[in-house]
Amino acid sequence: MPQAKEFVMRPIGHVRSPHGKHTDVPKGLGARHVAEGKIVVEPEYELGLTDIEGMSHLYVIWVFSEAKGFSLQARPPSSSRPHGVFVTRSPRRPNPIGLTVVKLIAREGNVLHVSGVDMLDRTPVLDIKPYLSSVPSEELRRGWLDEEEARQGSAE
Amino acid sequence: MPQAKEFVMRPIGHVRSPHGKHTDVPKGLGARHVAEGKIVVEPEYELGLTDIEGMSHLYVIWVFSEAKGFSLQARPPSSSRPHGVFVTRSPRRPNPIGLTVVKLIAREGNVLHVSGVDMLDRTPVLDIKPYLSSVPSEELRRGWLDEEEARQGSAE
Repeated sequence: MPQAKEFVMRPIGHVRSPHGKHTDVPKGLGARHVAEGKIVVEPEYELGLTDIEGMSHLYVIWVFSEAKGFSLQARPPSSSRPHGVFVTRSPRRPNPIGLTVVKLIAREGNVLHVSGVDMLDRTPVLDIKPYLSSVPSEELRRGWLDEEEARQGSAE
Repeated sequence: MPQAKEFVMRPIGHVRSPHGKHTDVPKGLGARHVAEGKIVVEPEYELGLTDIEGMSHLYVIWVFSEAKGFSLQARPPSSSRPHGVFVTRSPRRPNPIGLTVVKLIAREGNVLHVSGVDMLDRTPVLDIKPYLSSVPSEELRRGWLDEEEARQGSAE
């Protein structure tokens, strides 16, 4: 099965966030990502934001640009044991891609004011997509995270 | 603000899907993505799937590998007018990254059996992440898509 071996991605913009370093980002069970910040889109891509004001929530796809290498198992702050990296949000992944759902507060030209920022300041952004549907919470099972919450009694 | 100009991503696996060509993929208002398929992870990354069985839903981040170039405005099949590409799921984006929420049916070693596949067969996969929370539907506004559904009377 011949396939391209690599794909080159270039930032379309970057994040402005109150989180200057990793330790500033709330982590672990019950962590709430309510920080406000901005997605600053390069002016050349501003036309791509047309009609974004109508969307309450957006997916932001970004790069863990400070991650070095990867590990196939990761122990999240909320967990007592390691899990496969694809079952965690660890930055040390084969492709260091991050995904965050943000709430759109306002748009000013090429700048999106958002809340729910869990990225570091100046994080490169690769893509923005509309958040169009949710999995109903009653259909959602979250494996090790549900178990940890039950064990630690911190489910909300 | 000095930033890396590009990031090189390499597939961790690929999709097996009943959709052999673009016209096979349901599109437009009310399109339901219920197709079953597989995410075949390269054996060298199998350890990264440890404990994935407990998750009901996953994010799959992939590449529109057949997309050529991009356009900052796109007219989705469900819309009567163009919108900014970042407010649509158009494949012709600055970084041709796709994002799909799939339901995990079963795992067999390095192969995930899933439903909700809207990718073409053999689509390269860059990352898999756990789906951990939903935006409550009562908080969700979907801009042009809500308007089109209201206009066309096809809201469900």
